[in-house]
Amino acid sequence: MDPVLRPQRRESDRLLPADPALRSIARDLYARVADAPIISPHGHVPAAMLDADTPFPDPAALFVTSDHYVTRLLHASGVPLDALGLGRETVAPRSIWRTLAEHWHEFAGTASQLWLEQELREVLGITEELGPESADRIFDAIDRRLQEPAFRPRALFDEFDIAVLATTDDPLDDLDAHERLANSSLRGRVVPTFRPDGYLDPDADGFSERVQALLGADQAPSTFAGYLTALEGRRAHFRARGAVSADHGVLEPLALDLDAGEAERLFAEVLRGTAGAADRRRFRGHMLFQMARMSVEDGLVMTVHAGVLRNHSTATRRAFGPDTGHDIPIPTSFVEGLRPVLERWGLRPDFHLVLFTVDETTFSRELAPLAGFYPAVYIGAPWWFLDAPHAMARFRSAVTETAGFYRTSGFIDDTRAFLSIPARHDTARRADAAFLAGLVAEDRITIATAERVADDLVGAIPRTAFKL
Amino acid sequence: MDPVLRPQRRESDRLLPADPALRSIARDLYARVADAPIISPHGHVPAAMLDADTPFPDPAALFVTSDHYVTRLLHASGVPLDALGLGRETVAPRSIWRTLAEHWHEFAGTASQLWLEQELREVLGITEELGPESADRIFDAIDRRLQEPAFRPRALFDEFDIAVLATTDDPLDDLDAHERLANSSLRGRVVPTFRPDGYLDPDADGFSERVQALLGADQAPSTFAGYLTALEGRRAHFRARGAVSADHGVLEPLALDLDAGEAERLFAEVLRGTAGAADRRRFRGHMLFQMARMSVEDGLVMTVHAGVLRNHSTATRRAFGPDTGHDIPIPTSFVEGLRPVLERWGLRPDFHLVLFTVDETTFSRELAPLAGFYPAVYIGAPWWFLDAPHAMARFRSAVTETAGFYRTSGFIDDTRAFLSIPARHDTARRADAAFLAGLVAEDRITIATAERVADDLVGAIPRTAFKL
Amino acid sequence: MDPVLRPQRRESDRLLPADPALRSIARDLYARVADAPIISPHGHVPAAMLDADTPFPDPAALFVTSDHYVTRLLHASGVPLDALGLGRETVAPRSIWRTLAEHWHEFAGTASQLWLEQELREVLGITEELGPESADRIFDAIDRRLQEPAFRPRALFDEFDIAVLATTDDPLDDLDAHERLANSSLRGRVVPTFRPDGYLDPDADGFSERVQALLGADQAPSTFAGYLTALEGRRAHFRARGAVSADHGVLEPLALDLDAGEAERLFAEVLRGTAGAADRRRFRGHMLFQMARMSVEDGLVMTVHAGVLRNHSTATRRAFGPDTGHDIPIPTSFVEGLRPVLERWGLRPDFHLVLFTVDETTFSRELAPLAGFYPAVYIGAPWWFLDAPHAMARFRSAVTETAGFYRTSGFIDDTRAFLSIPARHDTARRADAAFLAGLVAEDRITIATAERVADDLVGAIPRTAFKL
Repeated sequence: MDPVLRPQRRESDRLLPADPALRSIARDLYARVADAPIISPHGHVPAAMLDADTPFPDPAALFVTSDHYVTRLLHASGVPLDALGLGRETVAPRSIWRTLAEHWHEFAGTASQLWLEQELREVLGITEELGPESADRIFDAIDRRLQEPAFRPRALFDEFDIAVLATTDDPLDDLDAHERLANSSLRGRVVPTFRPDGYLDPDADGFSERVQALLGADQAPSTFAGYLTALEGRRAHFRARGAVSADHGVLEPLALDLDAGEAERLFAEVLRGTAGAADRRRFRGHMLFQMARMSVEDGLVMTVHAGVLRNHSTATRRAFGPDTGHDIPIPTSFVEGLRPVLERWGLRPDFHLVLFTVDETTFSRELAPLAGFYPAVYIGAPWWFLDAPHAMARFRSAVTETAGFYRTSGFIDDTRAFLSIPARHDTARRADAAFLAGLVAEDRITIATAERVADDLVGAIPRTAFKL
Repeated sequence: MDPVLRPQRRESDRLLPADPALRSIARDLYARVADAPIISPHGHVPAAMLDADTPFPDPAALFVTSDHYVTRLLHASGVPLDALGLGRETVAPRSIWRTLAEHWHEFAGTASQLWLEQELREVLGITEELGPESADRIFDAIDRRLQEPAFRPRALFDEFDIAVLATTDDPLDDLDAHERLANSSLRGRVVPTFRPDGYLDPDADGFSERVQALLGADQAPSTFAGYLTALEGRRAHFRARGAVSADHGVLEPLALDLDAGEAERLFAEVLRGTAGAADRRRFRGHMLFQMARMSVEDGLVMTVHAGVLRNHSTATRRAFGPDTGHDIPIPTSFVEGLRPVLERWGLRPDFHLVLFTVDETTFSRELAPLAGFYPAVYIGAPWWFLDAPHAMARFRSAVTETAGFYRTSGFIDDTRAFLSIPARHDTARRADAAFLAGLVAEDRITIATAERVADDLVGAIPRTAFKL
Repeated sequence: MDPVLRPQRRESDRLLPADPALRSIARDLYARVADAPIISPHGHVPAAMLDADTPFPDPAALFVTSDHYVTRLLHASGVPLDALGLGRETVAPRSIWRTLAEHWHEFAGTASQLWLEQELREVLGITEELGPESADRIFDAIDRRLQEPAFRPRALFDEFDIAVLATTDDPLDDLDAHERLANSSLRGRVVPTFRPDGYLDPDADGFSERVQALLGADQAPSTFAGYLTALEGRRAHFRARGAVSADHGVLEPLALDLDAGEAERLFAEVLRGTAGAADRRRFRGHMLFQMARMSVEDGLVMTVHAGVLRNHSTATRRAFGPDTGHDIPIPTSFVEGLRPVLERWGLRPDFHLVLFTVDETTFSRELAPLAGFYPAVYIGAPWWFLDAPHAMARFRSAVTETAGFYRTSGFIDDTRAFLSIPARHDTARRADAAFLAGLVAEDRITIATAERVADDLVGAIPRTAFKL
């Protein structure tokens, strides 16, 4: 691999404050953590990719069509998704890449621009600026790189110095890939994450079939108790394979403690498909409550990603499937909806509940006050649309004065774009260095304290929150 | 006209960041666009004023009583509106001006202070600071200026270098003033905007009479179909007179696709005044949907200004009429309410839907994600209470990382205060230069990219969004 | 007292912007107001403490167990509240102090860290940094200080140069302590505040008993009219003892104007405990309306602290009582809920309604627009979780461009931590100096205007808002 990767990154002052005094402090803080091993406790890299260690495909597949943050903005700019090869496979990769290059100025200032440019520069060693004129040269340069052994997934995994990488997995996944990876020569751990949404939400496509498969896999009876036992069984399997957390994506952060009779009745109705909207909502709420109960019992960290309306454009979902760029955040509030869980288990330090939001109004209003009291609650790092330098700065500004740094989760990249992982963590480290530098320059904390916090943000803090 | 106008503006570093490195970059970016022609695709300057080209009245009428941003803050400070000559005409202009001067420190830091001081300095060449002691001298100086031919509306229109100015007009307006202006010697275009709120909202004062007048003007039958045809007819008239957009001010951004039978029934009931609140809401929602349908068909850009509760103080509206400073924003969400429109036409790049908000929580949560996917959606510029430097900075910070610059509308002054137009656009140019300078200084974009974006923000971006 | 207190404070650039040009301006502005007398028109220091003038207890009781901002974050970090001596009295103060010291890095960047360090340094003259190693030395140093006469409450009151300190008091309090303080040698005024929540909210613990006691104290009949008369009587007593305001803590800022019949019926039912949730809510809403009516009549400034869900953790409240760190903000909107009050009395400059929020989305969306029109409305200073430097900066950024500085209330410390009062006001003064410096550096206001505003923010502005 290109030996300039690390020094090149560290020598840049990217994202550090412009003011010389601030920048100097921030640079020193960043230098401490720039090369720290990467802890990635929540993300979407497929274990199979690392297991198979197949070379990455062409530049378009790697950087465009597999990244719905890139395709969505091209789409917004008037490029139909099928012109990018989504939904069919007949568009030439070079043509897709040229389309990206023609629209590249429209990505100026976005997170996607930041990640992609940093990947080109610091992972692939390509320093030329992307644009219509350079598109072909850069395409060819990437293409050559991707054929080198040093750019295959496992080599990069070690090169990136990833200490822990959590994948996100279907409850019925056998996790054999994880077992093979655990026994491989990879220097870091790859751990699965239990993600049961499709088995808990009656409105999910194929819910009944999925639940039947779950019950069948566990040879469990078709009762609510059997269903819970089957879920507990799969969680145990995940724990045995190294999982540290269970993840829950919900539109509404609602937990309901129902009595056994109602739960049994709702379970039967949602399986038959006869439950009305209110009952389906109650069932969903009860299952979030049950997931908290299981986390308390088996120790898996519970992460909740709330407030995103999935697949806003029905026509796009039908033509191109989910995760095609039209998941849209809605107003969110955690205080009442999660109260049943917090009333029951919120005071237990061994229960870890990490709350992620895309409604940044909850940062100062709810997440910091909740995490500033309940030992169970951790404030999830800036997530999704908020996962970029300005938003990170707003996040720290909003939560720190109420909850400090130690009630936050540490950075989560939440990405399936493997090559972007170093860029994303690097951005978080720089953003935190910049924020800490401000506290130092304004005489709020000493440099020694800032150094300790900077170190902990890439080590002790995520390790504690995720029980690593 | 005072020859120092332009240089005076460009030589000031007003609103540029204090940090020397940032300021230097921002200054260069601003210099590129400081003298660019003004594109004003949404505002409230009356075409009749330009058509008649009558001199502006006295300083109080020009800067105080016609500007409800100024009167509202005086009112908040304890000055009754009738002491400012509202509702009656017997207060001496000089007395009103002195009242403003006595309260001027209470405007410190407001947008109104910024506009008025810049108008005095850069349009009228008056550099003395306003206060009780200087009030009379400044009043006299303005008064003299306003009698000069160079300060009549048309001369200023050319002096301001306005390329496009959109007015906002009643659907039944004959638009003859626009036709005369199109044939006049004005260097820029003055185009009408179709604003049908009063014809669509059953709760608007005089709704039934207005609809009857509409149907009469078009000799249309009193059916829902006739009503739609009449609206289409007026839109065609607007398009023939140069209109590029239709504007919709709504409390709630709600669009409903009703079947023909329900629409016909609701139309009859709202005309008779027998519809209940829920039905009136459904009718309003359906008419927003119909307006979208018409925009798709006739190509007028659809702008939606949502979330303002008009006339909060009933006593004030009764005594002094609407637009007297007590329109108050409420919590707003676009995601579900506009979904019917976006499901139907959101993927069409030829449909342009520009969304404006006064609830800034929607910037990062909703508007940037929607405009970052739907080719139809553009993020409206900071509007109304958010139309000032700090709010502009928050706007760019909130939307850019998700949607970039090219999914925003370009600056909209939305003003009836003709003299403030250069100051408002100048402020937006400075604010954008400051924001771009930050991205350059933090090594996120190159200076060449920043220059392109700065240029486009005052040219290609508003021209594209508004089909100019 | 240690003679370095004041100079030490003024010589630090803490919280002033890092940029040299900004800092220089901010430093000059801060210097003007650093030593201005403290006006504290809303807080929770007990009058009895000043009246008795007993020495402060040990360091743990003074700085830890009496401050639920400190205990809540220790609790979140896994320290059970009873390990801090809450709920029982058997934990050694030195042990509690050591626990704080071990966790002190977890407070980095919080408001609590800022207050406590400034209290140690500037009130007690202790400059060593707190940590496990220094814990015992600092404990002993504090302990010695607290035994000196100069550190008793009254001596500090004069040393702090407090001009006005408002306490918060039960409506049935005899206020004799206030009378004695008024006749004491204290240089400043200590005034009571009428806080009737527990007598107005049917959901408050002991509501009926409290109302019966109120009626008994006033020998009023058990009718709604008698209840109102009794409340008016207590307000008159408060006014006679120097009160300038009545304070209202509500979950929902809702005011309802009910007719006499409904009010009478609801009053009977809430007293009997037979009212349903909707009726209890209506009663509460009507009582907020009645409180506004009484404020209009008797001139007490009405302050509303809205949007906090009290006692989120039932188990904690049961074990340790209220005010133990788990009051959590919820989404709040003032526009519709307070409309009945504003429609009725909002145009009266003699009615002062100061609105406080912990949902910062309302700053730009609602509070600034309301206070920018209604002479009755003042924007309450950043409150509770928002009462820290970054949040103060967000507050000024959000409200100033719409409402200026003169529609805000001036700083409110809202604290029961007497020793923290100078640190809190000092922070607000520095934050405002920093904000004003930004306006000066960006050429938005002159230095002379900034100086006037800085002066007024610690003098004329709170004196006007609170009728002092």
